[in-house]
Amino acid sequence: MPDRAFAAWRARVEAALDLALPSPDHAPRRLHAAMRHAVLNGGKRMRPLLVYASGIAMGASDENLDAAAVAVELIHCYSLVHDDLPAMDDDSLRRGQPTVHVAFDEATAILTGDALQSLAFDVLASAPLDAGRRVVMLAELARASGTAGMCGGQALDIDATGSAGTQRGQSEVSRHDDHLNDQHGREIHSDPFSLTDLEHLHTLKTGALLRASVRLGALAAGADATSLATLDRYANALGLAFQIRDDLLDIEGDSASLGKTAGKDAAQDKATFPALIGIEGSRSRLGQLSAGMDDALAALGADTTALAALGRLAVERTH
Amino acid sequence: MPDRAFAAWRARVEAALDLALPSPDHAPRRLHAAMRHAVLNGGKRMRPLLVYASGIAMGASDENLDAAAVAVELIHCYSLVHDDLPAMDDDSLRRGQPTVHVAFDEATAILTGDALQSLAFDVLASAPLDAGRRVVMLAELARASGTAGMCGGQALDIDATGSAGTQRGQSEVSRHDDHLNDQHGREIHSDPFSLTDLEHLHTLKTGALLRASVRLGALAAGADATSLATLDRYANALGLAFQIRDDLLDIEGDSASLGKTAGKDAAQDKATFPALIGIEGSRSRLGQLSAGMDDALAALGADTTALAALGRLAVERTH
Repeated sequence: MPDRAFAAWRARVEAALDLALPSPDHAPRRLHAAMRHAVLNGGKRMRPLLVYASGIAMGASDENLDAAAVAVELIHCYSLVHDDLPAMDDDSLRRGQPTVHVAFDEATAILTGDALQSLAFDVLASAPLDAGRRVVMLAELARASGTAGMCGGQALDIDATGSAGTQRGQSEVSRHDDHLNDQHGREIHSDPFSLTDLEHLHTLKTGALLRASVRLGALAAGADATSLATLDRYANALGLAFQIRDDLLDIEGDSASLGKTAGKDAAQDKATFPALIGIEGSRSRLGQLSAGMDDALAALGADTTALAALGRLAVERTH
Repeated sequence: MPDRAFAAWRARVEAALDLALPSPDHAPRRLHAAMRHAVLNGGKRMRPLLVYASGIAMGASDENLDAAAVAVELIHCYSLVHDDLPAMDDDSLRRGQPTVHVAFDEATAILTGDALQSLAFDVLASAPLDAGRRVVMLAELARASGTAGMCGGQALDIDATGSAGTQRGQSEVSRHDDHLNDQHGREIHSDPFSLTDLEHLHTLKTGALLRASVRLGALAAGADATSLATLDRYANALGLAFQIRDDLLDIEGDSASLGKTAGKDAAQDKATFPALIGIEGSRSRLGQLSAGMDDALAALGADTTALAALGRLAVERTH
């Protein structure tokens, strides 16, 4: 069943994204073309699938979930466009295609990300749902996107990258700001990066939006606080599993099947799970997280077939 | 009266911004410090003043307007951070201080803008207002920020800048996308830039957020459609006047009193009102717009003292 449901949901969200994105025939045409390049690129649509799977499990209809599905994917795509910029990860390949700043130019890539973020809130604000529910969902998405979520995690990631050396043009004075201080105000050098630090980084960087996707589906369905807390347990485990699998793929994969440059983590001296706990340690942690997802879903008391399948996808995916 | 009201509103929004921005003592500290650098910088707070002036005229309380005032200023500040980036306007000075990518670094500046945009929607979603009203206001802010508003205007501005020459690293192939096509699909070269083009550009680039500020205040007050349409007339004239004054200041001003680099427009071969209709033509257009604002406010049937004073400020400001 899940495979057929996933294909149907992917088709729904592709159509809804196409409708939400402005036409490349209208000015500013270059920006509109870049927005479409960034979004309509054959992505896996993991976050929209989580919205649908969670929402349907909690009793919503597909129609009530489309706006949230589009919104989380637009936020995800905007973050990829900005992460790929030369000043950030400097990546030229994304899902087998040139990144936005390569296919267009840097200024357009910056604006593309900015406009996609605005569009996400625009779409969600217009969802066919009770206004009270929409407002809660908008606040949820904004928090997951900002400094307490995705942007905050990316900032921690930048701080952690190449932490043994110097960072892209940062002066020693400004680097100083990021050293930790203990409770007496003494400075503690932030190297080495611990497993706790790394899990926290990814709880924000990728975890927050994955969790928001699960929660937005449930909120659209009017789920109660107990169900939301149970879904949080599932989503937190899924988010971490997703990232550990990503780190393993960067080591094991090749650029062609990944659709992006492989081996970049090691080249950038990036803190990763395999680097901190080894490949076997990472695989064993994946097993624990998988069991944690099963536990949470068993406690939900709903049809969780699709959510369980998405959990397996996060753990087992090959690209 | 307006001067005292403006001082009080500025103090309100400064306090509310300080409260909304995350603490620089919490991780990610570098990002939080950069967000504060970008926002708490002695800005004029024109947009928040428009929210308060419009909202009070339509019967709202200050308490019901704080969230919208903060939200529009956060959007404005995020746009300045991104506009100042090397790939965009490449400006190193803003309100007499180093811009965010100079004081910090480019990656942090990109994230700072992104996080400020998310925060704007977060704050507005939590405003102490009826949920139905909040949803309308959130959609209004999202549209004014995106491709049909501020981002779209910035994209048109990039297309127009240095249109006689080549653009920052853009290939001839990619430039090609921006040529206009007539209804038969024939290509029309987009030079020269007409006055209509320039007014449209600024209606989006600066006008949309100024208009949204006026509308958000009125929407928070529950203003009817007739009042909103009248306020739109005022806001459209104000937005254009604001930009024409900006263009004149770039010619007449010096960097020290402007707090940013003067004379950049001409240096960048930028389409401006003085370049298209001359300095005298620009001043005369300012006079027409000023009369248009007075007309609209007279039709509003409310105490418009503060709105009128803000109109004069837009026309007469010296920095």
